[in-house]
Amino acid sequence: MTGNNVSHPNHSHLRLKRLGIDTYREFVIYMNRDCEVCRAEGFEVRSRIAVESSGKSIVATLNVTGDDLLSTDEAGLSEAAWKALSAEEGQIVTLLHPSPLISESHLRRKVYGGTLGKEELEHIVRDVAGGFYDDIHLAAFVTACAGDRLNAQETIDLTAAMISAGDTLTWQSSRVADKHCIGGLPGNRTSMIVVPIVAAAGLVIPKTSSRAITSPAGTADVMETLTRVDLDLGEMKRVVEQEGGCIAWGGAMRLSPADDILIGVERPLDFDSEGQLVASVLSKKIAAGSTHVVLDLPVGPTAKLRNAEAAARLASRLQQTADAFGLIVKIVETDGTQPVGRGIGPVLEARDVVAVLQNDPAAPADLRKRALGLSGQLLELAGAAASGGGLVLAESLLSSGAAWRKFQSICAAQGGMRDLTFAPHRYEVLALQAGQVTSIDNRKLAKVAKLAGAPRAPMAGVDFHAPLGSIVKLGQPLYTVHAETPGELAYALDYAKSQTEMIEVWETT
Amino acid sequence: MTGNNVSHPNHSHLRLKRLGIDTYREFVIYMNRDCEVCRAEGFEVRSRIAVESSGKSIVATLNVTGDDLLSTDEAGLSEAAWKALSAEEGQIVTLLHPSPLISESHLRRKVYGGTLGKEELEHIVRDVAGGFYDDIHLAAFVTACAGDRLNAQETIDLTAAMISAGDTLTWQSSRVADKHCIGGLPGNRTSMIVVPIVAAAGLVIPKTSSRAITSPAGTADVMETLTRVDLDLGEMKRVVEQEGGCIAWGGAMRLSPADDILIGVERPLDFDSEGQLVASVLSKKIAAGSTHVVLDLPVGPTAKLRNAEAAARLASRLQQTADAFGLIVKIVETDGTQPVGRGIGPVLEARDVVAVLQNDPAAPADLRKRALGLSGQLLELAGAAASGGGLVLAESLLSSGAAWRKFQSICAAQGGMRDLTFAPHRYEVLALQAGQVTSIDNRKLAKVAKLAGAPRAPMAGVDFHAPLGSIVKLGQPLYTVHAETPGELAYALDYAKSQTEMIEVWETT
Repeated sequence: MTGNNVSHPNHSHLRLKRLGIDTYREFVIYMNRDCEVCRAEGFEVRSRIAVESSGKSIVATLNVTGDDLLSTDEAGLSEAAWKALSAEEGQIVTLLHPSPLISESHLRRKVYGGTLGKEELEHIVRDVAGGFYDDIHLAAFVTACAGDRLNAQETIDLTAAMISAGDTLTWQSSRVADKHCIGGLPGNRTSMIVVPIVAAAGLVIPKTSSRAITSPAGTADVMETLTRVDLDLGEMKRVVEQEGGCIAWGGAMRLSPADDILIGVERPLDFDSEGQLVASVLSKKIAAGSTHVVLDLPVGPTAKLRNAEAAARLASRLQQTADAFGLIVKIVETDGTQPVGRGIGPVLEARDVVAVLQNDPAAPADLRKRALGLSGQLLELAGAAASGGGLVLAESLLSSGAAWRKFQSICAAQGGMRDLTFAPHRYEVLALQAGQVTSIDNRKLAKVAKLAGAPRAPMAGVDFHAPLGSIVKLGQPLYTVHAETPGELAYALDYAKSQTEMIEVWETT
Repeated sequence: MTGNNVSHPNHSHLRLKRLGIDTYREFVIYMNRDCEVCRAEGFEVRSRIAVESSGKSIVATLNVTGDDLLSTDEAGLSEAAWKALSAEEGQIVTLLHPSPLISESHLRRKVYGGTLGKEELEHIVRDVAGGFYDDIHLAAFVTACAGDRLNAQETIDLTAAMISAGDTLTWQSSRVADKHCIGGLPGNRTSMIVVPIVAAAGLVIPKTSSRAITSPAGTADVMETLTRVDLDLGEMKRVVEQEGGCIAWGGAMRLSPADDILIGVERPLDFDSEGQLVASVLSKKIAAGSTHVVLDLPVGPTAKLRNAEAAARLASRLQQTADAFGLIVKIVETDGTQPVGRGIGPVLEARDVVAVLQNDPAAPADLRKRALGLSGQLLELAGAAASGGGLVLAESLLSSGAAWRKFQSICAAQGGMRDLTFAPHRYEVLALQAGQVTSIDNRKLAKVAKLAGAPRAPMAGVDFHAPLGSIVKLGQPLYTVHAETPGELAYALDYAKSQTEMIEVWETT
């Protein structure tokens, strides 16, 4: 080959200036529109640019500025990018065109309805975990896998790819218990009761939880109102070695990090994929070193699983995938027709959990019963109770106060227990007619809690007073909306008032 | 209903400061992390916020800054948002929670594989055209409709929704001609030859073109190297009334504006949807007031349509949809096995077009032949030539110089004709063995042109010297890569050199 006019530039350099712009997770690089590097490399707004410094490298999306923010030899970074590079003011960064991503062609094939092999999913997941996908490509991947668009083998391969893209934990014990609920049911905060019961029985249960994806609260959000949850791997190991159990946020560790990134896009999109759900749940459990896991699948017309058929399909996919990894699971389908407990939102749900653990006679009986049922199953599955003896053991550990003491010890080990404080702005939504409550729309109730600010605003949410079958009087409160700001309260109420069929009350004769 | 502690705040206000950050199309609002409005309304990074001022309203995504960029009573906007609001420095804006989008639940249904009705698609398209979808939601919609995931009725309804979300044009003439190529074939720049031939025949042909979506150049990009293309509706009407035809960029008008927004996401994703392609093409034609349209569908193993079956499926969907709107179309499947002409990239393609129009003996014969064939079809379809007489008429209008004079007049009417200038950085890729060219990978060749900077850098691209069947000697140039910067040249060559099978040369015996 011969050429003319070719000079292969080594690199382009700019000096970092901290602009302090927080874009959430997205890596953005800011450059002056007249900067030499833009011209020499042909970068333009929205170009993807590889940014390297001191051996670290990220790929960021270009936003262009005028002279007010940056001079032509400076570059800014979004806070997430700044952190990922461990950048310092004035540091020199090298900018270059990123290599084209091989996995983009796999993504495209999936979008067109193709089936992906193990290596192709590994490429995609590695690129996702490496931060090489921008939001548009993440959204395309999540959408292409939505519903039932991943087959059984793809689900297994995606799970394996997610595990291998992150860290994994190992434990001394040969039996490591865990439980997980697939969500979709407001207030279903059983993990925070199951973990202390099971740990009090002497089992090892290193529970990592997620923050809410599409719901008003995830277990990590609720636990965080009572103690620290952003433990790193070392801290988590120490807590579990000392107490037998923990309830930590998985996102602060690198267990299945691609999953955390995908969740960041699933949240605004507000939808799940069956295959991704399975891969997300099981990759986290396997990476955390769990061996025996109870999976709670709430089923109901407005829960995530709407009917027995959907539940059976998901259960079979979960079982199949778990089998492929030698993970022993017990899948429990539970009632998903209405919220569990009374609170919906981090602080309100924490209040219910503490009441159950303290054996408060006013504690929500349904939450207590669900948590005991799941604890019993897990105690049997992991061999701490004989078949049929799990529930009795769980009840005795709860009633005796052993579980509450264990919960307090776990909180102390995680960084100390906090007192709950409640929202300053509240509004009671009242029954417009007397009668019996005949149906409840979980999704709409959850939406009210989210519009009120949950889970970001921990005190926000809904306190629910009228379970299915309740007899209510005219003007009796059906639920109370809690918010941290007047704006959010108004916003939630605007929606709540437009949804009169959210809770149906039938006149009793 | 009764409540306690409720104060419904009217509004929250901030003063605008121009930060000058260009995010391309995305609406971003920047606010100080300690600002009162954030706290009062519960806004956080990535919240969607309705921004209102002087009767205009947009929805923007929140990025949060420190004190360096904004004080706590100031807000910044991305340049696209600034422009959409016609904002001025120091102007007061009102910030509030946007109403939840009804169309999000329709989107979710489509993601899960459901079928959407007319009203649901109208909701989605209206929200897209109104700028209420962020990139993540746009990417999800595009992905959910990708491949063949829109059925025939959805395609018709999407087309209708796209038309009604924008402006429409009407013309004096009862027959308004147009042509469109679905793309996928590098260098296939026939429109710029067909329009002057057909206009020279006395027909009305108000051609609006797009910029490249996934290719190294769209007709608008190529035409822009010779004259102004960002005409508004009034300017376009004037040009067409005066000259019978125009070649303008559709994106500067509000013909099917939702389509322009969707294309902004399709471009980085680099994929098309069959139904969206049909809706995109036909909504633009119908909104532009066309009545008789020739559609060019190139077919070949590495073209957008890979085989006769895919072409037949798309042709039938186009015909069906056109019929539903009373649009008369003629669908022409053409050879898509190799690039057309020699240039790939805006300036290089413009050079080929001008050579054909000038009857230059060295002009690419294949481009000339294709353009004449399509012109003949269109002249017959729109009644300017008897059946079978179209090609002869087209040839005489081209050979006589009438088409070239018409092209120059159109350029003059659009704002004056420019001279072409060529790229300063070039590299010849040579044959590594002697023989006959037996296959060409259009996609990879297009990718080289894109990596070299096309279409953003108009002089960038590939000049292709070795069409199928050519006999080449060892060391003879197969193609020349053109770039505006050394960085882009190096980037394109890195890729080109790794793709040795892009052009296959077989030893002849």
